[in-house]
Amino acid sequence: METVSENACFGGTQGVYTHASTACSCNMTFGLFLPAEAKDGPVPLLWYLSGLTCTHENAMTKAGAQTWAAEHGIALCFPDTSPRGDAVADDDGYDLGQGAGFYVNATEEPWASHYRMWDYVMDELPVLLERNFSLDMDRQSITGHSMGGHGALTMAMSPRGQFRSVSAFSPITNPTASDWGRKQLSAYLGNNEDIWSPHDATLCMRDRGFDGPMLIDTGTNDQFIDLLKPEALAEAAAARRQQIQFRMQPGYDHSYFFVSTFMEDHLAFHAEHLWA
Amino acid sequence: METVSENACFGGTQGVYTHASTACSCNMTFGLFLPAEAKDGPVPLLWYLSGLTCTHENAMTKAGAQTWAAEHGIALCFPDTSPRGDAVADDDGYDLGQGAGFYVNATEEPWASHYRMWDYVMDELPVLLERNFSLDMDRQSITGHSMGGHGALTMAMSPRGQFRSVSAFSPITNPTASDWGRKQLSAYLGNNEDIWSPHDATLCMRDRGFDGPMLIDTGTNDQFIDLLKPEALAEAAAARRQQIQFRMQPGYDHSYFFVSTFMEDHLAFHAEHLWA
Repeated sequence: METVSENACFGGTQGVYTHASTACSCNMTFGLFLPAEAKDGPVPLLWYLSGLTCTHENAMTKAGAQTWAAEHGIALCFPDTSPRGDAVADDDGYDLGQGAGFYVNATEEPWASHYRMWDYVMDELPVLLERNFSLDMDRQSITGHSMGGHGALTMAMSPRGQFRSVSAFSPITNPTASDWGRKQLSAYLGNNEDIWSPHDATLCMRDRGFDGPMLIDTGTNDQFIDLLKPEALAEAAAARRQQIQFRMQPGYDHSYFFVSTFMEDHLAFHAEHLWA
Repeated sequence: METVSENACFGGTQGVYTHASTACSCNMTFGLFLPAEAKDGPVPLLWYLSGLTCTHENAMTKAGAQTWAAEHGIALCFPDTSPRGDAVADDDGYDLGQGAGFYVNATEEPWASHYRMWDYVMDELPVLLERNFSLDMDRQSITGHSMGGHGALTMAMSPRGQFRSVSAFSPITNPTASDWGRKQLSAYLGNNEDIWSPHDATLCMRDRGFDGPMLIDTGTNDQFIDLLKPEALAEAAAARRQQIQFRMQPGYDHSYFFVSTFMEDHLAFHAEHLWA
Protein backbone atom coordinates (compact mmCIF):
# COMPACT_ATOMS: atom_id res chain seq x y z
CA MET A 1 0.00 0.00 0.00
CA GLU A 2 1.29 3.45 -0.90
CA THR A 3 0.30 6.83 0.50
CA VAL A 4 -0.87 9.22 -2.22
CA SER A 5 -1.58 12.11 0.13
CA GLU A 6 -2.36 12.90 3.75
CA ASN A 7 -3.93 16.21 4.81
CA ALA A 8 -4.73 17.43 8.30
CA CYS A 9 -8.51 17.69 8.49
CA PHE A 10 -10.81 18.45 11.45
CA GLY A 11 -8.14 17.43 13.94
CA GLY A 12 -7.54 14.11 12.17
CA THR A 13 -6.14 13.06 8.80
CA GLN A 14 -7.72 12.71 5.37
CA GLY A 15 -5.56 10.20 3.52
CA VAL A 16 -5.57 8.75 0.02
CA TYR A 17 -3.90 5.40 -0.56
CA THR A 18 -3.32 3.06 -3.46
CA HIS A 19 -2.66 -0.66 -3.49
CA ALA A 20 -2.57 -3.67 -5.81
CA SER A 21 -5.98 -5.28 -5.47
CA THR A 22 -6.29 -9.05 -5.67
CA ALA A 23 -10.05 -8.93 -6.08
CA CYS A 24 -9.97 -6.45 -8.96
CA SER A 25 -6.59 -7.43 -10.44
CA CYS A 26 -5.54 -3.80 -10.78
CA ASN A 27 -4.34 -0.92 -8.64
CA MET A 28 -7.13 0.57 -6.55
CA THR A 29 -7.28 3.92 -4.76
CA PHE A 30 -9.33 4.78 -1.67
CA GLY A 31 -9.77 7.66 0.74
CA LEU A 32 -9.69 7.22 4.51
CA PHE A 33 -10.51 9.85 7.11
CA LEU A 34 -9.15 9.10 10.59
CA PRO A 35 -10.40 11.30 13.43
CA ALA A 36 -8.04 12.54 16.14
CA GLU A 37 -9.21 9.72 18.43
CA ALA A 38 -7.52 7.14 16.17
CA LYS A 39 -4.16 8.25 17.61
CA ASP A 40 -5.23 6.81 20.97
CA GLY A 41 -6.73 3.54 19.81
CA PRO A 42 -9.06 1.85 17.32
CA VAL A 43 -12.13 3.82 16.19
CA PRO A 44 -15.36 2.69 14.50
CA LEU A 45 -15.57 2.79 10.70
CA LEU A 46 -18.30 4.09 8.40
CA TRP A 47 -18.09 3.08 4.74
CA TYR A 48 -19.29 5.56 2.12
CA LEU A 49 -20.00 4.07 -1.32
CA SER A 50 -20.24 6.56 -4.17
CA GLY A 51 -22.48 6.74 -7.20
CA LEU A 52 -22.15 6.52 -10.97
CA THR A 53 -19.18 8.40 -12.51
CA CYS A 54 -17.62 9.00 -9.08
CA THR A 55 -14.18 7.98 -7.85
CA HIS A 56 -12.90 7.74 -4.26
CA GLU A 57 -12.63 11.52 -4.37
CA ASN A 58 -16.12 12.97 -4.88
CA ALA A 59 -17.60 12.39 -1.45
CA MET A 60 -14.24 12.97 0.22
CA THR A 61 -14.21 16.55 -1.09
CA LYS A 62 -17.90 17.43 -1.46
CA ALA A 63 -20.04 15.63 1.13
CA GLY A 64 -18.83 17.43 4.25
CA ALA A 65 -18.75 14.09 6.05
CA GLN A 66 -15.47 14.71 7.89
CA THR A 67 -17.11 17.56 9.85
CA TRP A 68 -19.42 15.14 11.60
CA ALA A 69 -17.16 12.07 11.60
CA ALA A 70 -14.67 14.15 13.58
CA GLU A 71 -17.39 15.22 16.00
CA HIS A 72 -18.34 11.58 16.65
CA GLY A 73 -14.82 10.12 16.54
CA ILE A 74 -15.56 7.85 13.58
CA ALA A 75 -13.38 6.90 10.60
CA LEU A 76 -14.69 7.13 7.03
CA CYS A 77 -13.62 4.94 4.12
CA PHE A 78 -14.29 6.13 0.55
CA PRO A 79 -13.63 3.27 -1.91
CA ASP A 80 -13.55 3.79 -5.66
CA THR A 81 -16.66 2.76 -7.66
CA SER A 82 -14.97 0.33 -10.06
CA PRO A 83 -11.67 -1.14 -11.14
CA ARG A 84 -9.53 1.27 -13.18
CA GLY A 85 -6.82 1.33 -15.79
CA ASP A 86 -6.04 0.78 -19.46
CA ALA A 87 -6.18 -2.99 -19.00
CA VAL A 88 -9.69 -2.82 -17.49
CA ALA A 89 -12.72 -3.18 -19.79
CA ASP A 90 -14.81 -0.07 -20.24
CA ASP A 91 -17.88 1.17 -22.09
CA ASP A 92 -18.79 4.44 -23.78
CA GLY A 93 -21.81 4.83 -21.48
CA TYR A 94 -21.34 6.70 -18.21
CA ASP A 95 -23.39 3.99 -16.49
CA LEU A 96 -21.41 0.86 -17.42
CA GLY A 97 -17.75 -0.05 -16.97
CA GLN A 98 -15.28 2.22 -15.22
CA GLY A 99 -17.03 4.43 -12.66
CA ALA A 100 -20.05 2.12 -12.70
CA GLY A 101 -19.09 -1.12 -10.99
CA PHE A 102 -22.46 -1.50 -9.26
CA TYR A 103 -20.81 -3.32 -6.33
CA VAL A 104 -21.19 -6.81 -7.85
CA ASN A 105 -18.81 -9.64 -8.80
CA ALA A 106 -19.16 -9.81 -12.57
CA THR A 107 -19.41 -13.25 -14.14
CA GLU A 108 -19.71 -12.20 -17.76
CA GLU A 109 -17.03 -11.09 -20.21
CA PRO A 110 -15.44 -8.63 -20.76
CA TRP A 111 -16.09 -7.69 -17.12
CA ALA A 112 -15.40 -10.83 -15.09
CA SER A 113 -11.63 -10.48 -14.78
CA HIS A 114 -11.68 -7.11 -12.97
CA TYR A 115 -15.19 -6.10 -11.92
CA ARG A 116 -15.37 -7.71 -8.47
CA MET A 117 -16.37 -4.73 -6.37
CA TRP A 118 -18.47 -6.84 -3.98
CA ASP A 119 -15.46 -8.88 -2.90
CA TYR A 120 -13.26 -5.80 -2.93
CA VAL A 121 -15.44 -3.82 -0.51
CA MET A 122 -16.68 -6.73 1.58
CA ASP A 123 -13.50 -8.78 1.91
CA GLU A 124 -10.26 -7.36 0.60
CA LEU A 125 -10.39 -3.72 1.67
CA PRO A 126 -11.50 -4.44 5.27
CA VAL A 127 -8.49 -6.72 5.76
CA LEU A 128 -6.16 -4.11 4.31
CA LEU A 129 -7.64 -1.38 6.52
CA GLU A 130 -7.45 -3.46 9.68
CA ARG A 131 -3.82 -4.28 9.00
CA ASN A 132 -2.73 -0.70 8.35
CA PHE A 133 -4.90 1.62 10.44
CA SER A 134 -6.25 2.02 13.94
CA LEU A 135 -9.78 0.75 13.28
CA ASP A 136 -12.20 -1.32 15.35
CA MET A 137 -13.54 -3.68 12.70
CA ASP A 138 -16.18 -4.99 15.12
CA ARG A 139 -17.82 -1.57 14.76
CA GLN A 140 -18.63 -0.99 11.09
CA SER A 141 -21.58 0.70 9.42
CA ILE A 142 -22.22 1.59 5.81
CA THR A 143 -23.83 4.34 3.73
CA GLY A 144 -23.77 5.52 0.13
CA HIS A 145 -25.30 7.69 -2.55
CA SER A 146 -27.32 6.57 -5.56
CA MET A 147 -25.50 3.50 -7.00
CA GLY A 148 -23.53 3.56 -3.72
CA GLY A 149 -26.79 3.57 -1.77
CA HIS A 150 -27.71 0.43 -3.67
CA GLY A 151 -24.33 -1.04 -2.73
CA ALA A 152 -24.68 -0.09 0.92
CA LEU A 153 -28.17 -1.52 1.24
CA THR A 154 -27.41 -4.80 -0.53
CA MET A 155 -24.17 -5.34 1.37
CA ALA A 156 -25.84 -4.56 4.69
CA MET A 157 -28.61 -7.05 3.97
CA SER A 158 -26.25 -9.83 2.87
CA PRO A 159 -26.16 -12.78 5.30
CA ARG A 160 -22.68 -11.78 6.51
CA GLY A 161 -24.09 -9.26 8.94
CA GLN A 162 -20.94 -7.17 9.37
CA PHE A 163 -22.65 -3.79 9.65
CA ARG A 164 -24.38 -2.36 12.72
CA SER A 165 -26.43 0.24 10.83
CA VAL A 166 -27.06 1.20 7.23
CA SER A 167 -28.16 4.41 5.57
CA ALA A 168 -28.43 5.74 2.04
CA PHE A 169 -28.85 8.99 0.14
CA SER A 170 -31.16 8.72 -2.89
CA PRO A 171 -30.35 5.02 -3.38
CA ILE A 172 -31.19 2.88 -6.40
CA THR A 173 -33.57 0.55 -4.58
CA ASN A 174 -35.02 -1.75 -7.21
CA PRO A 175 -32.51 -2.17 -10.04
CA THR A 176 -34.02 -5.39 -11.37
CA ALA A 177 -37.02 -3.27 -12.37
CA SER A 178 -35.21 -0.15 -13.60
CA ASP A 179 -33.04 1.05 -16.48
CA TRP A 180 -30.42 1.87 -13.86
CA GLY A 181 -30.04 -1.80 -13.05
CA ARG A 182 -31.30 -4.15 -15.73
CA LYS A 183 -28.65 -2.90 -18.17
CA GLN A 184 -25.82 -3.34 -15.69
CA LEU A 185 -27.00 -6.54 -14.01
CA SER A 186 -27.44 -8.28 -17.36
CA ALA A 187 -24.03 -7.04 -18.55
CA TYR A 188 -22.17 -8.04 -15.39
CA LEU A 189 -24.17 -11.09 -14.26
CA GLY A 190 -25.82 -12.42 -17.44
CA ASN A 191 -29.45 -12.99 -18.20
CA ASN A 192 -30.39 -15.44 -15.45
CA GLU A 193 -32.35 -13.06 -13.26
CA ASP A 194 -32.39 -15.49 -10.33
CA ILE A 195 -28.84 -14.52 -9.47
CA TRP A 196 -29.63 -10.79 -9.59
CA SER A 197 -31.71 -10.76 -6.45
CA PRO A 198 -28.88 -10.26 -3.85
CA HIS A 199 -28.19 -7.03 -5.74
CA ASP A 200 -31.66 -5.53 -5.45
CA ALA A 201 -32.41 -3.84 -2.11
CA THR A 202 -36.14 -4.27 -2.48
CA LEU A 203 -35.77 -7.99 -3.14
CA CYS A 204 -33.30 -8.31 -0.23
CA MET A 205 -35.81 -6.54 2.00
CA ARG A 206 -38.58 -8.92 0.97
CA ASP A 207 -36.25 -11.89 1.44
CA ARG A 208 -34.59 -11.11 4.76
CA GLY A 209 -34.35 -7.41 5.67
CA PHE A 210 -31.65 -5.93 7.87
CA ASP A 211 -30.98 -6.87 11.49
CA GLY A 212 -30.51 -3.29 12.69
CA PRO A 213 -31.60 0.28 12.03
CA MET A 214 -31.89 1.78 8.55
CA LEU A 215 -32.07 5.45 7.44
CA ILE A 216 -32.92 6.49 3.88
CA ASP A 217 -33.22 10.03 2.47
CA THR A 218 -34.45 10.87 -1.02
CA GLY A 219 -35.26 14.31 -2.43
CA THR A 220 -38.75 14.90 -3.80
CA ASN A 221 -37.21 16.84 -6.73
CA ASP A 222 -34.63 14.15 -7.49
CA GLN A 223 -34.26 14.22 -11.27
CA PHE A 224 -33.66 10.44 -11.30
CA ILE A 225 -36.42 9.44 -8.92
CA ASP A 226 -38.21 7.28 -11.51
CA LEU A 227 -35.03 5.20 -11.79
CA LEU A 228 -34.44 5.07 -8.03
CA LYS A 229 -37.94 3.78 -7.18
CA PRO A 230 -37.91 4.68 -3.46
CA GLU A 231 -41.54 3.54 -3.28
CA ALA A 232 -40.54 -0.05 -3.93
CA LEU A 233 -38.21 -0.24 -0.94
CA ALA A 234 -40.55 1.75 1.29
CA GLU A 235 -43.35 -0.71 0.60
CA ALA A 236 -41.12 -3.73 1.16
CA ALA A 237 -39.64 -2.33 4.40
CA ALA A 238 -43.06 -1.47 5.82
CA ALA A 239 -44.42 -4.90 4.85
CA ARG A 240 -41.51 -6.58 6.66
CA ARG A 241 -41.83 -4.26 9.72
CA GLN A 242 -38.17 -3.35 9.23
CA GLN A 243 -36.76 -0.80 11.69
CA ILE A 244 -36.40 2.17 9.34
CA GLN A 245 -36.47 5.94 8.98
CA PHE A 246 -37.55 6.55 5.39
CA ARG A 247 -37.60 10.25 4.55
CA MET A 248 -38.65 12.13 1.43
CA GLN A 249 -37.01 15.56 1.63
CA PRO A 250 -39.09 18.30 -0.01
CA GLY A 251 -37.37 20.25 -2.80
CA TYR A 252 -34.04 18.42 -2.77
CA ASP A 253 -32.48 16.85 -5.86
CA HIS A 254 -29.83 14.20 -6.54
CA SER A 255 -26.78 16.41 -6.03
CA TYR A 256 -24.14 16.63 -3.33
CA PHE A 257 -25.92 19.79 -2.14
CA PHE A 258 -28.60 17.34 -1.02
CA VAL A 259 -26.13 14.81 0.38
CA SER A 260 -24.19 17.38 2.39
CA THR A 261 -27.40 18.86 3.79
CA PHE A 262 -28.35 15.62 5.51
CA MET A 263 -24.88 14.26 6.26
CA GLU A 264 -25.04 15.49 9.86
CA ASP A 265 -28.14 13.36 10.46
CA HIS A 266 -26.57 10.27 8.90
CA LEU A 267 -23.37 10.55 10.93
CA ALA A 268 -25.34 11.05 14.15
CA PHE A 269 -27.48 8.01 13.27
CA HIS A 270 -24.49 5.77 12.65
CA ALA A 271 -22.58 7.12 15.66
CA GLU A 272 -25.42 6.15 17.97
CA HIS A 273 -25.18 2.55 16.83
CA LEU A 274 -21.43 2.33 16.33
CA TRP A 275 -20.76 3.53 19.86
CA ALA A 276 -23.60 1.54 21.49
CA MET B 1 -28.69 37.63 -15.59
CA GLU B 2 -29.40 33.97 -16.31
CA THR B 3 -29.84 31.09 -13.91
CA VAL B 4 -27.39 28.27 -14.60
CA SER B 5 -28.62 26.04 -11.77
CA GLU B 6 -30.43 26.13 -8.46
CA ASN B 7 -30.22 23.30 -5.93
CA ALA B 8 -31.97 22.96 -2.60
CA CYS B 9 -29.23 23.06 0.05
CA PHE B 10 -29.46 23.20 3.87
CA GLY B 11 -33.00 24.52 3.73
CA GLY B 12 -32.06 27.29 1.29
CA THR B 13 -30.85 27.44 -2.30
CA GLN B 14 -27.41 27.13 -3.86
CA GLY B 15 -27.65 28.98 -7.17
CA VAL B 16 -25.23 29.59 -10.03
CA TYR B 17 -25.85 32.60 -12.27
CA THR B 18 -24.22 34.16 -15.31
CA HIS B 19 -24.37 37.72 -16.58
CA ALA B 20 -22.69 40.10 -19.01
CA SER B 21 -20.16 42.03 -16.91
CA THR B 22 -19.48 45.67 -17.72
CA ALA B 23 -16.38 45.76 -15.54
CA CYS B 24 -14.80 42.70 -17.15
CA SER B 25 -16.31 43.03 -20.64
CA CYS B 26 -17.21 39.35 -20.74
CA ASN B 27 -19.74 36.95 -19.32
CA MET B 28 -19.11 36.20 -15.66
CA THR B 29 -20.43 33.36 -13.49
CA PHE B 30 -20.95 33.39 -9.73
CA GLY B 31 -22.42 31.17 -7.04
CA LEU B 32 -24.88 32.46 -4.44
CA PHE B 33 -26.16 30.55 -1.42
CA LEU B 34 -29.36 31.95 0.08
CA PRO B 35 -30.43 30.56 3.45
CA ALA B 36 -34.08 29.78 4.18
CA GLU B 37 -34.44 33.12 5.97
CA ALA B 38 -34.05 34.98 2.65
CA LYS B 39 -37.61 33.94 1.78
CA ASP B 40 -38.84 36.18 4.61
CA GLY B 41 -36.67 39.22 3.99
CA PRO B 42 -33.17 40.49 3.30
CA VAL B 43 -30.28 38.60 4.90
CA PRO B 44 -26.63 39.57 5.50
CA LEU B 45 -24.03 38.65 2.89
CA LEU B 46 -20.59 37.08 3.26
CA TRP B 47 -18.29 37.21 0.23
CA TYR B 48 -15.89 34.31 -0.34
CA LEU B 49 -13.01 35.04 -2.73
CA SER B 50 -11.21 32.01 -4.10
CA GLY B 51 -7.57 31.31 -4.83
CA LEU B 52 -5.37 30.65 -7.84
CA THR B 53 -6.80 28.24 -10.45
CA CYS B 54 -10.24 28.32 -8.82
CA THR B 55 -13.56 29.30 -10.39
CA HIS B 56 -16.83 30.24 -8.66
CA GLU B 57 -17.30 26.52 -8.06
CA ASN B 58 -14.45 25.29 -5.85
CA ALA B 59 -15.48 26.73 -2.51
CA MET B 60 -19.15 26.28 -3.34
CA THR B 61 -18.63 22.52 -3.50
CA LYS B 62 -15.67 21.87 -1.19
CA ALA B 63 -15.56 24.38 1.66
CA GLY B 64 -18.64 23.22 3.57
CA ALA B 65 -19.58 26.86 4.09
CA GLN B 66 -23.31 26.42 3.44
CA THR B 67 -23.58 24.23 6.54
CA TRP B 68 -22.74 27.17 8.79
CA ALA B 69 -24.19 29.95 6.64
CA ALA B 70 -27.54 28.18 6.96
CA GLU B 71 -27.13 27.92 10.71
CA HIS B 72 -26.52 31.67 10.98
CA GLY B 73 -28.99 32.78 8.29
CA ILE B 74 -26.32 34.36 6.11
CA ALA B 75 -25.98 34.43 2.31
CA LEU B 76 -22.70 33.51 0.61
CA CYS B 77 -21.45 34.89 -2.70
CA PHE B 78 -18.73 33.00 -4.59
CA PRO B 79 -17.40 35.16 -7.46
CA ASP B 80 -15.08 33.81 -10.14
CA THR B 81 -11.36 34.60 -9.82
CA SER B 82 -10.87 36.30 -13.19
CA PRO B 83 -12.55 37.19 -16.46
CA ARG B 84 -13.08 34.22 -18.78
CA GLY B 85 -13.46 33.35 -22.44
CA ASP B 86 -11.62 32.97 -25.73
CA ALA B 87 -11.49 36.75 -26.14
CA VAL B 88 -9.82 37.21 -22.75
CA ALA B 89 -6.02 37.29 -22.55
CA ASP B 90 -4.39 34.33 -20.83
CA ASP B 91 -0.98 32.97 -19.92
CA ASP B 92 0.51 29.50 -19.81
CA GLY B 93 1.29 29.88 -16.10
CA TYR B 94 -1.34 28.78 -13.59
CA ASP B 95 -0.64 31.97 -11.64
CA LEU B 96 -1.27 34.63 -14.29
CA GLY B 97 -4.27 35.29 -16.54
CA GLN B 98 -7.48 33.29 -16.34
CA GLY B 99 -7.98 31.89 -12.85
CA ALA B 100 -5.47 34.36 -11.44
CA GLY B 101 -7.03 37.82 -11.56
CA PHE B 102 -5.53 38.84 -8.19
CA TYR B 103 -8.52 41.15 -7.54
CA VAL B 104 -6.97 44.22 -9.17
CA ASN B 105 -7.91 46.54 -12.03
CA ALA B 106 -5.20 45.90 -14.60
CA THR B 107 -3.70 48.90 -16.35
CA GLU B 108 -1.22 47.06 -18.58
CA GLU B 109 -1.79 45.23 -21.85
CA PRO B 110 -2.86 42.59 -22.71
CA TRP B 111 -4.78 42.55 -19.42
CA ALA B 112 -6.34 45.99 -19.10
CA SER B 113 -9.43 45.42 -21.23
CA HIS B 114 -10.86 42.57 -19.13
CA TYR B 115 -8.95 42.12 -15.85
CA ARG B 116 -10.90 44.48 -13.60
CA MET B 117 -11.77 42.14 -10.74
CA TRP B 118 -11.52 44.90 -8.11
CA ASP B 119 -14.33 46.88 -9.73
CA TYR B 120 -16.25 43.70 -10.48
CA VAL B 121 -16.31 42.50 -6.87
CA MET B 122 -16.47 45.90 -5.18
CA ASP B 123 -18.93 47.71 -7.47
CA GLU B 124 -20.67 45.76 -10.19
CA LEU B 125 -21.57 42.48 -8.52
CA PRO B 126 -22.98 44.08 -5.32
CA VAL B 127 -25.40 46.16 -7.43
CA LEU B 128 -26.46 43.11 -9.40
CA LEU B 129 -26.98 41.08 -6.23
CA GLU B 130 -28.99 43.79 -4.50
CA ARG B 131 -31.25 44.14 -7.53
CA ASN B 132 -31.96 40.42 -7.91
CA PHE B 133 -31.85 38.82 -4.46
CA SER B 134 -33.13 39.33 -0.94
CA LEU B 135 -29.91 40.72 0.57
CA ASP B 136 -29.23 43.40 3.18
CA MET B 137 -26.31 45.21 1.59
CA ASP B 138 -25.75 47.22 4.76
CA ARG B 139 -24.57 43.97 6.31
CA GLN B 140 -21.62 42.66 4.29
CA SER B 141 -18.45 40.87 5.36
CA ILE B 142 -15.71 39.24 3.35
CA THR B 143 -13.41 36.23 3.48
CA GLY B 144 -11.23 34.28 1.09
CA HIS B 145 -8.51 31.69 0.60
CA SER B 146 -4.92 32.27 -0.54
CA MET B 147 -5.13 34.76 -3.46
CA GLY B 148 -8.73 35.27 -2.34
CA GLY B 149 -7.55 35.97 1.19
CA HIS B 150 -5.33 38.67 -0.30
CA GLY B 151 -8.37 40.04 -2.12
CA ALA B 152 -10.55 39.96 0.99
CA LEU B 153 -7.97 41.72 3.16
CA THR B 154 -7.13 44.45 0.64
CA MET B 155 -10.78 45.12 -0.20
CA ALA B 156 -11.71 45.26 3.48
CA MET B 157 -8.93 47.73 4.19
CA SER B 158 -9.78 50.00 1.25
CA PRO B 159 -11.16 53.39 2.29
CA ARG B 160 -14.66 52.42 1.15
CA GLY B 161 -15.39 50.62 4.41
CA GLN B 162 -18.23 48.45 3.15
CA PHE B 163 -17.41 45.36 5.21
CA ARG B 164 -18.19 44.81 8.89
CA SER B 165 -15.63 42.04 9.42
CA VAL B 166 -12.92 40.34 7.41
CA SER B 167 -11.30 36.93 7.64
CA ALA B 168 -8.94 34.87 5.54
CA PHE B 169 -7.66 31.32 5.15
CA SER B 170 -3.93 31.10 4.36
CA PRO B 171 -3.91 34.50 2.66
CA ILE B 172 -1.16 35.97 0.52
CA THR B 173 -0.31 38.83 2.86
CA ASN B 174 2.69 40.59 1.36
CA PRO B 175 2.63 40.16 -2.44
CA THR B 176 4.93 43.10 -3.15
CA ALA B 177 7.66 41.06 -1.46
CA SER B 178 6.83 37.61 -2.83
CA ASP B 179 6.93 35.61 -6.06
CA TRP B 180 3.17 35.20 -5.65
CA GLY B 181 2.68 38.88 -6.14
CA ARG B 182 5.56 40.67 -7.81
CA LYS B 183 5.03 38.69 -11.01
CA GLN B 184 1.31 39.46 -11.13
CA LEU B 185 1.40 43.04 -9.85
CA SER B 186 4.04 43.99 -12.41
CA ALA B 187 2.11 42.25 -15.20
CA TYR B 188 -1.25 43.76 -14.31
CA LEU B 189 -0.19 47.15 -12.89
CA GLY B 190 3.20 47.86 -14.44
CA ASN B 191 6.51 48.53 -12.79
CA ASN B 192 5.68 51.62 -10.74
CA GLU B 193 5.54 49.97 -7.33
CA ASP B 194 3.91 53.00 -5.73
CA ILE B 195 0.55 51.96 -7.16
CA TRP B 196 0.92 48.37 -5.90
CA SER B 197 0.46 49.24 -2.25
CA PRO B 198 -3.39 49.12 -2.08
CA HIS B 199 -2.98 45.48 -3.17
CA ASP B 200 -0.68 44.37 -0.37
CA ALA B 201 -2.41 43.56 2.92
CA THR B 202 0.70 44.19 4.97
CA LEU B 203 1.18 47.64 3.42
CA CYS B 204 -2.56 48.38 3.87
CA MET B 205 -2.24 47.38 7.50
CA ARG B 206 0.71 49.68 8.02
CA ASP B 207 -1.09 52.48 6.19
CA ARG B 208 -4.57 52.36 7.74
CA GLY B 209 -5.65 48.92 9.07
CA PHE B 210 -9.26 47.77 9.24
CA ASP B 211 -11.99 49.45 11.23
CA GLY B 212 -13.45 46.21 12.61
CA PRO B 213 -12.49 42.69 13.66
CA MET B 214 -10.16 40.47 11.63
CA LEU B 215 -9.62 36.69 11.77
CA ILE B 216 -6.78 34.92 9.94
CA ASP B 217 -5.94 31.20 9.90
CA THR B 218 -2.82 29.69 8.34
CA GLY B 219 -1.61 26.09 8.61
CA THR B 220 1.87 25.51 9.98
CA ASN B 221 2.43 22.84 7.30
CA ASP B 222 1.20 25.07 4.47
CA GLN B 223 3.37 24.14 1.49
CA PHE B 224 3.25 27.73 0.23
CA ILE B 225 3.89 29.46 3.54
CA ASP B 226 7.10 31.12 2.29
CA LEU B 227 5.04 32.81 -0.42
CA LEU B 228 2.18 33.75 1.93
CA LYS B 229 4.40 35.48 4.51
CA PRO B 230 1.92 35.44 7.41
CA GLU B 231 4.65 36.87 9.64
CA ALA B 232 4.61 40.14 7.70
CA LEU B 233 0.93 40.81 8.34
CA ALA B 234 1.12 39.56 11.93
CA GLU B 235 3.87 42.03 12.67
CA ALA B 236 2.09 44.91 10.97
CA ALA B 237 -1.23 44.16 12.69
CA ALA B 238 0.36 43.94 16.12
CA ALA B 239 2.32 47.14 15.52
CA ARG B 240 -0.92 48.93 14.58
CA ARG B 241 -2.84 47.44 17.55
CA GLN B 242 -5.38 46.12 15.03
CA GLN B 243 -8.27 44.08 16.50
CA ILE B 244 -7.28 40.65 15.21
CA GLN B 245 -7.32 36.92 15.84
CA PHE B 246 -4.24 35.60 14.05
CA ARG B 247 -3.98 31.82 14.30
CA MET B 248 -1.33 29.36 13.13
CA GLN B 249 -3.00 25.96 12.98
CA PRO B 250 -0.60 23.10 13.72
CA GLY B 251 -0.27 20.43 11.03
CA TYR B 252 -2.65 21.94 8.49
CA ASP B 253 -1.71 22.65 4.88
CA HIS B 254 -3.06 24.85 2.07
CA SER B 255 -5.90 22.56 0.96
CA TYR B 256 -9.66 22.74 1.29
CA PHE B 257 -9.34 20.09 4.02
CA PHE B 258 -7.81 22.94 6.02
CA VAL B 259 -10.38 25.52 4.87
CA SER B 260 -13.37 23.31 5.66
CA THR B 261 -11.97 22.45 9.08
CA PHE B 262 -12.08 26.07 10.23
CA MET B 263 -15.08 27.27 8.22
CA GLU B 264 -17.39 26.90 11.23
CA ASP B 265 -15.24 29.35 13.20
CA HIS B 266 -15.16 31.88 10.37
CA LEU B 267 -18.92 31.80 9.83
CA ALA B 268 -19.54 32.21 13.57
CA PHE B 269 -17.09 35.12 13.62
CA HIS B 270 -18.77 36.92 10.74
CA ALA B 271 -22.27 36.14 11.99
CA GLU B 272 -21.53 37.82 15.30
CA HIS B 273 -20.66 41.05 13.51
CA LEU B 274 -23.17 40.84 10.66
CA TRP B 275 -26.08 40.42 13.09
CA ALA B 276 -24.78 42.93 15.66
